[in-house]
Amino acid sequence: MTFEIKERDAAGRLCKFTTTHGIVTTPNLLPVINPNKMIIPPKEMKKRFNSEILITNSYILYKDEILRKQALEQGVHKLLDFSGSIMTDSGTFQSYIYGDIKLDPLEIVQFQRDIGSDIGTILDIFGTPGQTKEEAQRGVKETITRAKKSVPEKGEMLLACTVQGSVYPDLREYCAQQLSKLDADFYPIGGVVPLMENQRYPDLVRCILAAKRGLDPSKPVHLFGAGHPLIFPLAVALGCDFFDSSAYAKYANDGRMIFQWGTEKFDELTELPCCCPVCSKYTYSELRKLNAKERTLQLALHNLYVSFAEIKIIRTAITGGWLWELVEQRASANPSLCDALRILREPEHLNWLENYEPTSKKTAMFYTSPQTIHRPTIYRYHTRLFTRYKPVLKTTVVFPEGTKPYSMFYSREIKQILDKKNVNFVVNSHLGPVPFELDEMYPLAQSVFPDEIDQETREKVQQVTDRFLRNKTVIYWDDFTKIKEDKSQKQNVDLDMRRISAVADMQFGRGASEALLNGAITIIKSRRTGKIRNILCDGSHVISMRAKDGLFTLKLDGGRRLHRDLKYPLLRVVITEDAVPFVKEGKSVFVKFVKDCDPDLRPFDECLIVNEKDMLLAVGRTLLNRDEMLMFRHGMAVKTRASIK
Amino acid sequence: MTFEIKERDAAGRLCKFTTTHGIVTTPNLLPVINPNKMIIPPKEMKKRFNSEILITNSYILYKDEILRKQALEQGVHKLLDFSGSIMTDSGTFQSYIYGDIKLDPLEIVQFQRDIGSDIGTILDIFGTPGQTKEEAQRGVKETITRAKKSVPEKGEMLLACTVQGSVYPDLREYCAQQLSKLDADFYPIGGVVPLMENQRYPDLVRCILAAKRGLDPSKPVHLFGAGHPLIFPLAVALGCDFFDSSAYAKYANDGRMIFQWGTEKFDELTELPCCCPVCSKYTYSELRKLNAKERTLQLALHNLYVSFAEIKIIRTAITGGWLWELVEQRASANPSLCDALRILREPEHLNWLENYEPTSKKTAMFYTSPQTIHRPTIYRYHTRLFTRYKPVLKTTVVFPEGTKPYSMFYSREIKQILDKKNVNFVVNSHLGPVPFELDEMYPLAQSVFPDEIDQETREKVQQVTDRFLRNKTVIYWDDFTKIKEDKSQKQNVDLDMRRISAVADMQFGRGASEALLNGAITIIKSRRTGKIRNILCDGSHVISMRAKDGLFTLKLDGGRRLHRDLKYPLLRVVITEDAVPFVKEGKSVFVKFVKDCDPDLRPFDECLIVNEKDMLLAVGRTLLNRDEMLMFRHGMAVKTRASIK
Repeated sequence: MTFEIKERDAAGRLCKFTTTHGIVTTPNLLPVINPNKMIIPPKEMKKRFNSEILITNSYILYKDEILRKQALEQGVHKLLDFSGSIMTDSGTFQSYIYGDIKLDPLEIVQFQRDIGSDIGTILDIFGTPGQTKEEAQRGVKETITRAKKSVPEKGEMLLACTVQGSVYPDLREYCAQQLSKLDADFYPIGGVVPLMENQRYPDLVRCILAAKRGLDPSKPVHLFGAGHPLIFPLAVALGCDFFDSSAYAKYANDGRMIFQWGTEKFDELTELPCCCPVCSKYTYSELRKLNAKERTLQLALHNLYVSFAEIKIIRTAITGGWLWELVEQRASANPSLCDALRILREPEHLNWLENYEPTSKKTAMFYTSPQTIHRPTIYRYHTRLFTRYKPVLKTTVVFPEGTKPYSMFYSREIKQILDKKNVNFVVNSHLGPVPFELDEMYPLAQSVFPDEIDQETREKVQQVTDRFLRNKTVIYWDDFTKIKEDKSQKQNVDLDMRRISAVADMQFGRGASEALLNGAITIIKSRRTGKIRNILCDGSHVISMRAKDGLFTLKLDGGRRLHRDLKYPLLRVVITEDAVPFVKEGKSVFVKFVKDCDPDLRPFDECLIVNEKDMLLAVGRTLLNRDEMLMFRHGMAVKTRASIK
Repeated sequence: MTFEIKERDAAGRLCKFTTTHGIVTTPNLLPVINPNKMIIPPKEMKKRFNSEILITNSYILYKDEILRKQALEQGVHKLLDFSGSIMTDSGTFQSYIYGDIKLDPLEIVQFQRDIGSDIGTILDIFGTPGQTKEEAQRGVKETITRAKKSVPEKGEMLLACTVQGSVYPDLREYCAQQLSKLDADFYPIGGVVPLMENQRYPDLVRCILAAKRGLDPSKPVHLFGAGHPLIFPLAVALGCDFFDSSAYAKYANDGRMIFQWGTEKFDELTELPCCCPVCSKYTYSELRKLNAKERTLQLALHNLYVSFAEIKIIRTAITGGWLWELVEQRASANPSLCDALRILREPEHLNWLENYEPTSKKTAMFYTSPQTIHRPTIYRYHTRLFTRYKPVLKTTVVFPEGTKPYSMFYSREIKQILDKKNVNFVVNSHLGPVPFELDEMYPLAQSVFPDEIDQETREKVQQVTDRFLRNKTVIYWDDFTKIKEDKSQKQNVDLDMRRISAVADMQFGRGASEALLNGAITIIKSRRTGKIRNILCDGSHVISMRAKDGLFTLKLDGGRRLHRDLKYPLLRVVITEDAVPFVKEGKSVFVKFVKDCDPDLRPFDECLIVNEKDMLLAVGRTLLNRDEMLMFRHGMAVKTRASIK
């Protein structure tokens, strides 16, 4: 089994997951196949939806004598006539629905192994939301025991160990931690169907976050029983990789059509508000006239078309860097999802999410709701403003929101003021205070907000601004006359130098600007745009500013300076000795060669690649954070930019 | 030509529009056909998208000698090989793009008529957003002059007179009023393409609202040049009926794909985030490998599938009563659309929108954004609370938000309090103060809000609550001990009577409760639910409460009482004498028989049907508001419920 991150956004990831039956791209949806009643045959799934993986229930096969025999003789792939990957469930859900089903927890794992399932599931104990903590605890304990006993039985099969713990986050996290210690391959989050059925999305989010906190980040996570696309974007943003849909068939049997915004009863519609092949082929009345069986099939197909489309939209959003935008848009369709989003503002969750949030994205940040200001990217910016940014002077002139970049928009005013006195400049922007030095940095220039934002956002931003301006002499731009000429303060101000220092500290941490810029500085600007491009210190090229996100690319000489002045483990990715020759040749760093890493490095951060003796080998750009580098077994950890020969 | 409302929501409407070439359902999208370069032939449009109407450019036909001859000989339907309705544009847009095009304004109208266009367009003067008011004024004057001269030339053809006026709402409204006085059939809103291209959606909304205020509400309105689905839901909610898409082809030629949330460049995608027949048939790499011409065709098809799907979603939302929810969801994808929504909060616009807003809907109201609280339905509720609701007592006990219906949720507390003292009860709800008597009335019980709402909504609601509680003795429920026993105030309180009176006044206006309930009251409740069903006054059935929306259905005896006590024109729909016999037979009232109507009646209100001498003939339910009843020529105005034999 391999599982590696190819693209990422929020805490979501687009991965390649390999089983013996092929490559599966995540996030993905596993259609549930009932071996007794295949509305859509697996082969058709492959043809129509390009299904790479599906799920069937081993308990149904096991308890039916004929099916059991067939499955054992032919294997589950032949039985279902499907050449892609097959996951099997264990009967846990059946025991939740029908009560005790008398099934040996080890036998069912062995059975799954013996029928050639790619991913088999332990017979865990379904924890219901109504359980007391003690009941839930007993279930978790038994689940862990069964998982431990199941691991030695898995053979060639990948083993899925389901995280339980009812609605108790500490139990969920504990269960996840214990299961992560085992030699398992796949982690479903179980016991969540009742939460989804009752639209208890805030509780669902707490369950997912608690499980994710406890889980090995290098393993695929499956939100068990989640088949309605309404929840897909948020669940992916929190780090879920797989969903399974029995909903497509269940809803179709029930005459219900799944849409991105919810569910509609076929009988209550008057036309088909969709462009999937089913809704494009038939008019409403044609579909209505089909016989019941054929109509159910068409509704099931529609349900899967819509569900898979949402998966593809999510993948596109991950690749494009607009997953949070998608999450907020979709949440607006459902008040309980709005409540669920609010959970993410709690510091504990925001801190966790910030760890996984890329430092830069391909597309601008769009305001989509009162939740936008609480995105991890903005939380990070606000945090770094207080821990990394150092204002140069006491007096600060504050401008109102304007056109970006602000320093260009207000360039005349800046000149007028600097003629009188040397001051700091800050814009009271929609996403917080923006010192002019930082106004080209992601996401400050790369953000699109409405002209008028909601009051909740305004007040959140005002709090940050008030804190930022505390103990400073503040002059609001409408009080321009208040700025008195001060000869002693009138000095040659190099705004470029201020910008370079400030961005370096924000990006690399305090002390980085001194390390990088301690010497005679030459600034090379773009002829066309006039923007800063390359910065040379004592004649050597230390950093370059990227036009796209206003952040620095670290050059080898810059790396040398940071390495000298910033103490271990700052900015370091430590690699094992056997990888040193490859990195020296300029090859990128794969996770299995990572020994350690600065916990403050985030995905897409510039970094120093060092050996175990902290000798600088190269500079590069991370693809993963520390936890991921240490836990993943496949894929790239750092893209090497330049190495010391 | 007939144009009649079949379904409605917000100020949007689902209509049947008839030309000599068939019935067209609105809202609808007219694909633009370039007669020189048909990427998708009109016949294919019909087959794939069930296109009922399309638009082509008469100027292109006119200026090309061969095409002109063919068009005149064969007619435009044969020329395009399309049997549905065809609208023609006049060359206005070409004159905007290419400057003066030397075209006689009357000749082009005659030409359109002569080639058999179903809807021809005058050669209006394109007003650009950059114009001064004087320039715009000159354009409007000339447009009106040309329209006047064009009308006598139209023959059998329907004539579209385009509303201009640049970004000046007063000019737009004036132009619309003047054009509405003419014998024209169709009203495009023109000159808006530059606003859409620059995403100036707030300006676009002001233009649409100003035009709609000035226009005859019984005529179809076309947002000229609007082809991106992003703007469809909002434009429909404001009363636009038609859009036209040249975007499908233009974007395809440019390698761009239209999505509901915006536009993506094909080259920048890695998969196809969509389930339309094109995106379901091809994988991204297969589509990429097609030759340029074939790929452009497929992208154009995709663009139309997505655009028509949005139209169908909008129609479904109108029928289902969730158009505002859709508008807010879609607006969340675009900051400029968020700004545009804010415009709707201005009292002028809110008053206009309230006029068209149905009094009840099929589905519950969902909170979707900070805009929700400003929807016309809630605005109406707040307004009526101050003008129609009369609290019975001075002392008011205020409860926090709870489960609906509140009077059931707080029934124990109510009983405890009433044992001590007789008071009013109010819930400080997410959508404003809710007196217990009103808690089953739409939209109070039929609303779904998050547990925690945004601060902007909270403060708006707090303002209303503060005003509502002003000059009252208020006791908050957490201060229960403050309620002192008061024997003088302890009396038999009939909560049902309070409810019936209060809802009657809110629904029919002040004085209605006295009119309806002046006598011995018998309340018949549902055995199953215990809810109020029928109310008898002095033994005769006056009103029934609907379980679905908590509003009253008016019975004939109730109608008699309201008619006696509420002065003309309150609640009246006046019909002409020739319709009297039909209504007496129980037939519904068609618009052409409506003589006048209470301006306070709203769509789906209960009403009194009277003759010109204000003699009561029947009771019924309106489908239209006053302006619509007086202006429409086709369709139903009032559904008669019971008539006096």
